[in-house]
Amino acid sequence: MTDYLLHYWPIAFRGEFVRAVLAYAGASWEEPGMDEIRAQKSRAPRDQIVPHMGPPVLTDLRANASIAQMPAILFYLAERHGLFPQEPMRRALCLKAVEDANDVLYEMTRHNGNQMWTDDAWRVFRPRLDRWMGIFEETGRRFGLEAGDGFLLGTADACLADLVTATLWGTMTEKLPPLRPVLDANAPRIAGLCDRMAARPALAAQRRDSDARFGDAWCGGQIEASLRAVI
Amino acid sequence: MTDYLLHYWPIAFRGEFVRAVLAYAGASWEEPGMDEIRAQKSRAPRDQIVPHMGPPVLTDLRANASIAQMPAILFYLAERHGLFPQEPMRRALCLKAVEDANDVLYEMTRHNGNQMWTDDAWRVFRPRLDRWMGIFEETGRRFGLEAGDGFLLGTADACLADLVTATLWGTMTEKLPPLRPVLDANAPRIAGLCDRMAARPALAAQRRDSDARFGDAWCGGQIEASLRAVI
Repeated sequence: MTDYLLHYWPIAFRGEFVRAVLAYAGASWEEPGMDEIRAQKSRAPRDQIVPHMGPPVLTDLRANASIAQMPAILFYLAERHGLFPQEPMRRALCLKAVEDANDVLYEMTRHNGNQMWTDDAWRVFRPRLDRWMGIFEETGRRFGLEAGDGFLLGTADACLADLVTATLWGTMTEKLPPLRPVLDANAPRIAGLCDRMAARPALAAQRRDSDARFGDAWCGGQIEASLRAVI
Repeated sequence: MTDYLLHYWPIAFRGEFVRAVLAYAGASWEEPGMDEIRAQKSRAPRDQIVPHMGPPVLTDLRANASIAQMPAILFYLAERHGLFPQEPMRRALCLKAVEDANDVLYEMTRHNGNQMWTDDAWRVFRPRLDRWMGIFEETGRRFGLEAGDGFLLGTADACLADLVTATLWGTMTEKLPPLRPVLDANAPRIAGLCDRMAARPALAAQRRDSDARFGDAWCGGQIEASLRAVI
């Protein structure tokens, strides 16, 4: 029996965080086609599997229960599959990493494509991107993360925070290669963590699968075209 | 000894969720002045109490540890003060309510004031506001919430989801009264829940305190002026 059903567009972006956690946890999942995703999103809340505004939506097929909102999905999976640290503040910092990642996605797409990138807008934004990288870097530094060793929150093995950090910065800099030197310069510890996480067999296999399915698409659409034009 | 220190602007908006949870939990907290909030936000990540992009930031003075991002702060407080339901999917739905609330705040302020409201933009947006209300209403309906009785997720007493729901829709419709009939029409169960939660002594006292400190300000700034002009 398949463990989960994931409704998400055929791009990396927010869905890739869920896919990475599912793969790392060793869970099996299926993703319905675009027609079903669109239909589910468009239904009245009363007719949705969980009332929601947009994907991702995850269904736990064993529990026959669904949840929307990427951070809530990751929270559910982290509890279910033991990906939270023991210490309460470190658990909260896992969720902070998720929220920071979500904000970076919003800002990199000018709020999900609400406005397109221009050279001027990118120039104004660039120091913020550096700062976001610096926020992750400093978080790791405080917990003993090194460029060649360790985890974001100083845990003995990877936790949700590492999966989220590696999916955010690893996927972004792989799909948008001009940003990799920016990451190396602002967040060398994070760049190293991304590489080490990407080398884990479950995550490497998941990335190969996503690459085969989505190609170079990161956030997709016109906003991705405008982003590629300015970076 | 004071329990918490909360860095947030002197407005309701995102900080009000933290204040409501703190008040409901019976915790004591202090809020530094604007100069200190601005200084903390502007520091290099290495010099911040927790690396972050903007407030709210909460410091647990007993644990001497700080956390940023409203959903992560609420998660920390809900774990610490027993405001999460027992059942895993209901815990995840608490976080979904937080994320939905955060999205509503983003959309109501056109992404934190990134663009100003115009009559046209508001007309285009209005069905989405109805839908957001409908998403909360349907969530409650599935768990047995009635207009006159019950809680969002069918728990025996209020949990984080109820505090978040009441703070979102209750504060918004109190500060922006033309939206109360919109809530009554789209989400009568939620409107009733807001009123019942607002009547709880701890929350009523917290609201009086916020009203005295912030007056009618909801999100503040030019975006609030443009919002009041269109509704």
